[in-house]
Amino acid sequence: MDSQRLYNEIQRKKSYLCIGLDSDIEKIPEHIRKEKESVFLFNKKIIDQTHQTCVAYKINTAFYEAHGVKGWEFLSQTAQYIKSNHPEIFLIADAKRGDIGNTSKMYAKAFFEQMPFDAVTVAPYMGKDSIEPFLEFPEKWVIILGLTSNKGAADFQLHCSVQEKMPLYESVINTCSKWGTKDNTMFVVGATKNEQIKTIRDIIPKHFLLVPGIGAQGGSLEKVSDDGMNDKCGLLVNSSRSIIFKDQSKTFANSAKKEAEKVQKNMESQLIKYKII
Amino acid sequence: MDSQRLYNEIQRKKSYLCIGLDSDIEKIPEHIRKEKESVFLFNKKIIDQTHQTCVAYKINTAFYEAHGVKGWEFLSQTAQYIKSNHPEIFLIADAKRGDIGNTSKMYAKAFFEQMPFDAVTVAPYMGKDSIEPFLEFPEKWVIILGLTSNKGAADFQLHCSVQEKMPLYESVINTCSKWGTKDNTMFVVGATKNEQIKTIRDIIPKHFLLVPGIGAQGGSLEKVSDDGMNDKCGLLVNSSRSIIFKDQSKTFANSAKKEAEKVQKNMESQLIKYKII
Repeated sequence: MDSQRLYNEIQRKKSYLCIGLDSDIEKIPEHIRKEKESVFLFNKKIIDQTHQTCVAYKINTAFYEAHGVKGWEFLSQTAQYIKSNHPEIFLIADAKRGDIGNTSKMYAKAFFEQMPFDAVTVAPYMGKDSIEPFLEFPEKWVIILGLTSNKGAADFQLHCSVQEKMPLYESVINTCSKWGTKDNTMFVVGATKNEQIKTIRDIIPKHFLLVPGIGAQGGSLEKVSDDGMNDKCGLLVNSSRSIIFKDQSKTFANSAKKEAEKVQKNMESQLIKYKII
Repeated sequence: MDSQRLYNEIQRKKSYLCIGLDSDIEKIPEHIRKEKESVFLFNKKIIDQTHQTCVAYKINTAFYEAHGVKGWEFLSQTAQYIKSNHPEIFLIADAKRGDIGNTSKMYAKAFFEQMPFDAVTVAPYMGKDSIEPFLEFPEKWVIILGLTSNKGAADFQLHCSVQEKMPLYESVINTCSKWGTKDNTMFVVGATKNEQIKTIRDIIPKHFLLVPGIGAQGGSLEKVSDDGMNDKCGLLVNSSRSIIFKDQSKTFANSAKKEAEKVQKNMESQLIKYKII
């Protein structure tokens, strides 16, 4: 999937919502937790109810790995289910991988060949040869950690470099953006980092940003859109817990749908405001 | 396992070898590749022949994830096999994980509760709250990427920080070493980075270093030992491909054993030289 196709979907669905399937088994409704295929079943119902409100799903591998082999099976089933039923949806493995070249290639195979993901999040610490193997897969994307939404982002990402005369996160975004193109590279920028989103937009005017931190983490959709939107939208804004865990009763999927629709409506207003639709 | 117990094992086995089970299915001998339990069977035979020569095994998750659910099963089986048969061996998941707090906790559960690993490698880019959840498990370790062995290490790890007046990798090692103790935190330092190992040893005189890059990547065991050994050894030196893929015939496990013994003998000399044994 290239950026034009993603943009077309954003216009068609009037949404730049990415729903995070952080499907922690301890947080899914009790009645479904008891089922053999619990997490997959939960995801399936959430997907069936929300796929019209979002252009992307993001599956965080941690919540699946925590349940061993069965968890990895849920991960794989969920990815297959999304791509079989909704091939137009941009599917992200939020895995934050990264290793030396021959090893990163194996991670790329895991998510792009074994499973039908469109994109994988990667950590930039190990540099170019840890990211390049992901870029060798046509139509697939890397989403590189730029400035993350957590408190610990300040520990190293804000360190100013003597040589580069800019903070590490700017240097990462500036450098890594040259390794790929706007059609195979995005950056993670936390919605809680309002001051810096404008600066980042100046560095990479045309790239998509994946923005977590709306909802449970407290970021504002309006602020992120004001600071980060470009003429092709250029934003995927993620919400996980505040949508998928809205309701613990048997109507959980319908509640998730209503919550996602609320966010989509807000996004529609932003898209109109910025003349995207 | 604390550092004293690891040190005792190093003295007993006269070795600080960590064998990397980077068991790429395409590189294991053809006769075993055809078996249903191929990768696990390969690992089992390698472990049976080499466990007396090493104090640690390191399993790189990438090579297992590349084979989907079955691969994750091989990973889990291998970890169980090592810990059931050789509980004294220090077992490392080379996973290079790291995410916001509640998510990192899930990764810690995956490797420390679902599987019996003693340690997980983590990337430091997201800072303290991405690493702390791993430190909450008693007797378990994090191994933080400091200065990696690959070419891309130069892209960001060598950037000098204005505030800290030192390169990023030094700042990472200096800062992260204060989050845990020498009994639950190690750092990855590539064997190809001879100039910097001495500097790192000055920053953390008592911590263990996990050193990849000997063997296929070209690092020298003698040089690493001269620069990095402390009075409790303080080194785990990893070798993967040059041991496990030494031979493609039916005698592959025996060839791996001979190769591992060669490395162990070199290590024994170093341990004598530095009066560890």
